Amino acid sequence: MTQQAGVFITVEGIEGVGKTTNMAFIQQYLQALGVDLTVTREPGGTPLAEEIRGLLLNNRDEALNNDAELLLVFAARAQHLGQLIKPTLAQGGWVLSDRFTDATYAYQGGGRELSMEMIANLEQMVQGDLRPNLTLLLDVPVEVGLSRAGQRGELDRFEREKQAFFEKVRHTYLQRAQAEPERFCVVDASQPLAAVQGDIEAALRPFLVKQGLMDG
Amino acid sequence: MTQQAGVFITVEGIEGVGKTTNMAFIQQYLQALGVDLTVTREPGGTPLAEEIRGLLLNNRDEALNNDAELLLVFAARAQHLGQLIKPTLAQGGWVLSDRFTDATYAYQGGGRELSMEMIANLEQMVQGDLRPNLTLLLDVPVEVGLSRAGQRGELDRFEREKQAFFEKVRHTYLQRAQAEPERFCVVDASQPLAAVQGDIEAALRPFLVKQGLMDG
Repeated sequence: MTQQAGVFITVEGIEGVGKTTNMAFIQQYLQALGVDLTVTREPGGTPLAEEIRGLLLNNRDEALNNDAELLLVFAARAQHLGQLIKPTLAQGGWVLSDRFTDATYAYQGGGRELSMEMIANLEQMVQGDLRPNLTLLLDVPVEVGLSRAGQRGELDRFEREKQAFFEKVRHTYLQRAQAEPERFCVVDASQPLAAVQGDIEAALRPFLVKQGLMDG
Repeated sequence: MTQQAGVFITVEGIEGVGKTTNMAFIQQYLQALGVDLTVTREPGGTPLAEEIRGLLLNNRDEALNNDAELLLVFAARAQHLGQLIKPTLAQGGWVLSDRFTDATYAYQGGGRELSMEMIANLEQMVQGDLRPNLTLLLDVPVEVGLSRAGQRGELDRFEREKQAFFEKVRHTYLQRAQAEPERFCVVDASQPLAAVQGDIEAALRPFLVKQGLMDG
C-alpha cells in the first residue's frame, strides 16, 4: 500500500439491514482496541458533500434524472475522498464508511440499470486505485429490510422505491460480493444480533492482527 | 436531425466579454422574428441545476476539489438537458444558452487542466450526439474582460481566478473554435457594440433562412 497507511472499511446493504446499529458496534469495538477511527458516510462526509446528499435524498417536485443522480453521487464522493478519506488513510488512520462505491453499483447500476462500465470509469476517475480493504455486506431478504425501514417514519427518495428496485440492488450487492470474496464479507443480518456481531468481529480480526492490535 | 426539431444556440466566452448584453440582443432579435425561444444558462437552467450552480460558484470555507467540480458541472447539465433542453428541442423550440459544454472544456479542461478525454466521456454520457447547432464565441483579450468583470462588485469562485487561468480558458475556447469552424462563430467582442451585433446577426441568418423566418 503506497499511498495508504490506514485501513478503509465500508458497510453496505439495503434499507433496514441494521447498518446504524452495526456501525455503532464496529465503532465501539475498534475504538476499545485503540484504533484511530474516523466514522463517515456516503453520500456525504464533508459539509459540501452533505449538501449534495440533500439534493440526492430529498423528495422534491423536480424529478432528478438518472445521469444527474449518478454524477452527483460521484461528485460527493470525489469531495469526500479529497477532503477526508485520502488524508485520513495517508496519516495511518482507519476510516469506517456507511456505504461507498459498491452502493453506486448496486443502486444506480443494479436498481436504476445505468451502465456498469460508466460507473467503473467514474470510479477510476475519482478513486484511482483506492478500494476498501474490507466491505461488510449486511444482507437480509428485501421484504425483511423494507418492513424494518418502513417503521422509521418519512421515507427518502430511495426508500420510496418499490420492492423490485431493492431486489435488483440486493442482487447486485451479492454478485459483487461473490466476485470479490477476498474483500467482501457477507453477513446474514437476519440472524440474532449477537450472531451478526460475532461475524463482524471475525471479519475485522485479520486487520487488527496485522496492525498489532490483537494476537493472531 | 432525428431527435431534434429545434435549433440549439450557445454563447460562450470568458468573464467580461459582454455575454449578458449580447444574450439580450439575440433574444430580442430572434423573438422579433417570431422564433419560439427558450433562454437559459449553465450551470443551471432548472431549480435543481441552479442549486448545483450555487455549490459551484459560491465562495465557501471548504475547497471544492477539481474532480467534484467537473462532476457537479455535468450533473447540472444532465438535469438541464433532461428537464429543459431536450424536451424543448424535440418540440421544435429554439434554445439559447449562456454557456454549455464548450465552457467545461475551456474552464475545467483548459483552466484546471483536467483530462480532456474524461470531459469527452462525460459529454458523451450525458449528451449522446446532441451538440449546439451554433456557438457564438465572444472573444476579447483577457485583460479587457477581467477589467470589465472586475467592475461588477463581488466576485464568484471562478471570477477570483488569476489572469493565467483565464488565458488558458480563452486559449482553449479559441482552439475549439478553430477545430470546429462550421459550428463556431468567433466574434471580436472588443469591437464597438454595433459591429459585434452585426457579426452575431450574420451568424444567425442561415438558421433563420432554413426555418423560413427570413429570405435567403
